[in-house]
Amino acid sequence: VAAAARSIRARRPAGLVIAARGSSDHAGLYGKYLFEIRNRVSVALAAPSALTHYGSGPRLERHCVIGISQSGSSPDVVAVVADARRQGALTVALTNDPASELARQAQHVIPLEAGQELSVPASKTFLATLLALALLSQELDPDPELEAGLGRLPGALEAALELEPRIQDLAAGLGTEHLVVLGRGYQLATAGELALKLLETCYLPAQAYSTADFRHGPIAVADPGLTAILLQSAGPFQADNAQLATELAGLGAQVAVLADGAPTEGAVAFDSGLPEALTPLPMGLAAHLLACHLAVRLGLDPDRPRTLRKITQTW
Amino acid sequence: VAAAARSIRARRPAGLVIAARGSSDHAGLYGKYLFEIRNRVSVALAAPSALTHYGSGPRLERHCVIGISQSGSSPDVVAVVADARRQGALTVALTNDPASELARQAQHVIPLEAGQELSVPASKTFLATLLALALLSQELDPDPELEAGLGRLPGALEAALELEPRIQDLAAGLGTEHLVVLGRGYQLATAGELALKLLETCYLPAQAYSTADFRHGPIAVADPGLTAILLQSAGPFQADNAQLATELAGLGAQVAVLADGAPTEGAVAFDSGLPEALTPLPMGLAAHLLACHLAVRLGLDPDRPRTLRKITQTW
Repeated sequence: VAAAARSIRARRPAGLVIAARGSSDHAGLYGKYLFEIRNRVSVALAAPSALTHYGSGPRLERHCVIGISQSGSSPDVVAVVADARRQGALTVALTNDPASELARQAQHVIPLEAGQELSVPASKTFLATLLALALLSQELDPDPELEAGLGRLPGALEAALELEPRIQDLAAGLGTEHLVVLGRGYQLATAGELALKLLETCYLPAQAYSTADFRHGPIAVADPGLTAILLQSAGPFQADNAQLATELAGLGAQVAVLADGAPTEGAVAFDSGLPEALTPLPMGLAAHLLACHLAVRLGLDPDRPRTLRKITQTW
Repeated sequence: VAAAARSIRARRPAGLVIAARGSSDHAGLYGKYLFEIRNRVSVALAAPSALTHYGSGPRLERHCVIGISQSGSSPDVVAVVADARRQGALTVALTNDPASELARQAQHVIPLEAGQELSVPASKTFLATLLALALLSQELDPDPELEAGLGRLPGALEAALELEPRIQDLAAGLGTEHLVVLGRGYQLATAGELALKLLETCYLPAQAYSTADFRHGPIAVADPGLTAILLQSAGPFQADNAQLATELAGLGAQVAVLADGAPTEGAVAFDSGLPEALTPLPMGLAAHLLACHLAVRLGLDPDRPRTLRKITQTW
């Protein structure tokens, strides 16, 4: 991390580009908020097909390109990083396999060191990716509050694990007719991740929205068949999110809230004591537990979803 | 358009940033593919809340920022453009109201000239935004094939309008239990737009996916209750998309295809004769017709959805 940060500081890149797929793409969205807010650098999420299928990706010689792939084998993430390096971009790989093709192609490798991922859907590698991004952001622009938060992280994650019985209760009462997951700012990434896990492990067509986008259009679907899971952290959206929850309840929808440090009526609330920039870690863990217990309730094995393979083979 | 393009060429920006909400955000995604593939410039879609809620957006002095808002009044799009201009960025507004706040804040204004939008959900302003982006891309890197395609556009759009009876038939047979809209490359933007219109006008929780992302994870939800609408154009994804359609049909899902220049069995197929970069225009029109007829079939007024207002007031 320190070496990658030194190179980035030395190069002063015009912007960051993050290339990822699936869960890693949600981690990338966390990175976008983190680097744009904390490090004030513009972040683009790569559209790999420009390069891999249209044969003409953007010029990136003034950029820093971060490829994220737990396996290090996603071919289009590898392709974006390899092409960027050929162009002269600074390249960084975040991967759980430092011997992977992605790691070989990048100048800097930040290993996730999550150990072997035993379930097919990414869980601990997702959290490890969030952590790696937070460490990189902190290394680029150190801040004592974030430093202290990083020190409290192990305890905060243990506290989230202890929520399991309450999350199991939440899963037991959750409607499954029509699910949406709502979040904003830093929790937009965890909302996307939870929706994906509900799809992959519960086969429920859950959809993630920014609370702002949801309120503008898709709220039209709100009715008593809707279950909205709101991921809430103490931060600039707390009051607006709470208002949306009230609105949705008024329309007859079921509203389930996972709240970190944001006391909300009827919520599974915890208080990690972390700066908001780090709350996606315990929230991500709580979200994974929720998907896991909903899958179990539905008689499914969350570790081995049908039709999924471990490596994102984008063809 | 010409003046904006001259300024962009003179500045050689490190990247483009597109700020938009709702339908305009889907147009922005089209712009991302267009500018990255055709103009080889990296495009980031703005996360306005970094600035508006966390009070700390990215540094953009080396970038060109394009704000898209049909009304020109979306406060967070205006905020991103105004802040970027203060920072010294080159700023461009795409709006249907040249007297709007967004137009006032930007150095260059590209008026959509779509006339008054009569329905609440954006339709002709969406197509006009795609066209404005295509004209800007062409002005930056002129190409005779695209030029010829732009000349054929009015005819292609009329041909799409003539599909209406067949699209009405398609809408009549469409399952509504669980809908997804699939596309890739240039059609990812139209897939997102169709999903949003199905939500806003039919109150159906449709979700858009890249065919690549869908195949990796969410395909786990495919069963006989699923209806997949595939937006297909002649291009690098044609064979892969057709294979996915076969796979989905094999899993018992209903597959409905709108195909431009890509002959596909059982599809509502047309042949606009346009270069793929322009096919989102007739495809977007066909998608709007499909949402319209499905709403009518469901006894709803597609022009006046419940809970929607004209201006994206992100609070």
